[in-house]
Amino acid sequence: MSVLVVGSVALDSVETPFGKADDVLGGSGTFFSASASHFTPVQLVGVVGSDYPVDKLAPLAARGVDLAGVEKVEGESFRWRGRYRHDLNSAETLETRLGVFSHFRPKVPESFLSAPFVFLANIDPRLQLDVLRQVRAKGNPKLVACDTMNFWIESRRPDLVELLKHVDLITLNDGEARQLTEHSNLVKAARWILDRGPRYVIIKKGEHGAFMFTRETVFFAPAYPLEDVFDPTGAGDSFAGGFIGYLARAGSLDEASMRQAVVYGSAMGSFAVEKFSTQRLMEIGTAEIEARVREFHRLVSFDAPLAR
Amino acid sequence: MSVLVVGSVALDSVETPFGKADDVLGGSGTFFSASASHFTPVQLVGVVGSDYPVDKLAPLAARGVDLAGVEKVEGESFRWRGRYRHDLNSAETLETRLGVFSHFRPKVPESFLSAPFVFLANIDPRLQLDVLRQVRAKGNPKLVACDTMNFWIESRRPDLVELLKHVDLITLNDGEARQLTEHSNLVKAARWILDRGPRYVIIKKGEHGAFMFTRETVFFAPAYPLEDVFDPTGAGDSFAGGFIGYLARAGSLDEASMRQAVVYGSAMGSFAVEKFSTQRLMEIGTAEIEARVREFHRLVSFDAPLAR
Repeated sequence: MSVLVVGSVALDSVETPFGKADDVLGGSGTFFSASASHFTPVQLVGVVGSDYPVDKLAPLAARGVDLAGVEKVEGESFRWRGRYRHDLNSAETLETRLGVFSHFRPKVPESFLSAPFVFLANIDPRLQLDVLRQVRAKGNPKLVACDTMNFWIESRRPDLVELLKHVDLITLNDGEARQLTEHSNLVKAARWILDRGPRYVIIKKGEHGAFMFTRETVFFAPAYPLEDVFDPTGAGDSFAGGFIGYLARAGSLDEASMRQAVVYGSAMGSFAVEKFSTQRLMEIGTAEIEARVREFHRLVSFDAPLAR
Repeated sequence: MSVLVVGSVALDSVETPFGKADDVLGGSGTFFSASASHFTPVQLVGVVGSDYPVDKLAPLAARGVDLAGVEKVEGESFRWRGRYRHDLNSAETLETRLGVFSHFRPKVPESFLSAPFVFLANIDPRLQLDVLRQVRAKGNPKLVACDTMNFWIESRRPDLVELLKHVDLITLNDGEARQLTEHSNLVKAARWILDRGPRYVIIKKGEHGAFMFTRETVFFAPAYPLEDVFDPTGAGDSFAGGFIGYLARAGSLDEASMRQAVVYGSAMGSFAVEKFSTQRLMEIGTAEIEARVREFHRLVSFDAPLAR
């Protein structure tokens, strides 16, 4: 089953304590696609400027990412320049040039409208709602998920709260969950969001793992304890790509599949940070992914006491 | 099998966003004992001043904590006064009065010297070494574990590094592990410590869970996602008490028992923070503890893909 993703396609320039990379593949749509394409066909909707080196996207196309929805328009591509300090915990944005992305009006190609899995990556909630209208006018997706960020929580709160009514799942990080809900406790924050629409809330805590909450259950997956984190850029979108991609491949939303999807997402996030850009995601294969998921299993496995 | 613990016995005054408590039971030795006594007999070595309301320790004695090693000497008891802000992540120390604790010279009673499990709670590493000399002169413990804190890492580094040669296990929090080893990456920090003596390193991350590292393995247990954290004081020592207490009851140090012990420790830490002081630890029974451990199991359980 295919996955439709709407998000940014950017050029990143990143400095970490271990090196730097200039004008490499970046953007939420790109990381998501590179990750999800390990599991299922992906349909990417985005925009690039006339200066975009589109040949850089060829490896994505070769992996089964349909680029028919990536519009090329006159102007500059979205560029992000950032730096990570020694602890790698937070990016310092040195420059953001939105370019053509500032006028992005996603148009979902006719052939993408029936995708059973939809991921609305981190863009203006008004555009996310607009994409949903396009999709729901024609299709009937099994699962619609979205991501967001602090900027939209501040500037587009009413639209974001409206969006919550229309999605099945939201991924956001712990800081964003606290900001959106005004609850510092994550269990309460998750319940606040669940009360406003989504059946699933995934709260990402970066190096501290991720929670998936439903009304009845909670599941937790740690982040993989890597010895060398090289570049954290894109970890969250790679998580989402692994999560949704796995579900699309499994074709099921039962509890067991949802839990596995969180772990596959975590595994993909852990690969993403091992090299710059989407480089590591492009190298790995199924065997490595499955091996890492088994390592996650060993990491948390213990024998529970028997119920009395 | 009994557990010997050497640590502080204090009076805490704590303010949280949810209330305040004055001159309640506190100290590392106290929390550890309240927690470990759910699993096994405990032998506590500590010191209190002439002003200590020793009847407050009666519930501990009733739970099987042998107080023969708690010396009462002329002077003021150790008092700590602290406050937690809304996020409950870090205590703000308002006042520390060491009182008789500043001259504490632990004397392990003859009858405690053969304890098979020993926990050297957070005190001056020179005293921890001295206790070990007393114990090793007579006994041959199966497991010696210690805790420490930033203050000793700064002021007693050579003694602490010497102590590492003589313990089987150390528990410390992530900030302390980074400070001690000068590695920001926890996998590297753990290896640094393992290279200096201990077979096991437990790195506690508070609300983000705990890692147990050996040379060959790594295990992770999340913190229990509580909706209401009332007072974080003593969580780490309650963790240690559950961990060592469980091992003493199991009587085994095999991998399965060690992993379970981390989860029992996490469970006891999660109870400790539900009320002020040792109050919640005193209320709960085996059924509640086992039920929470099963909840930890549900929290992280997923089906791993089969090896190919």
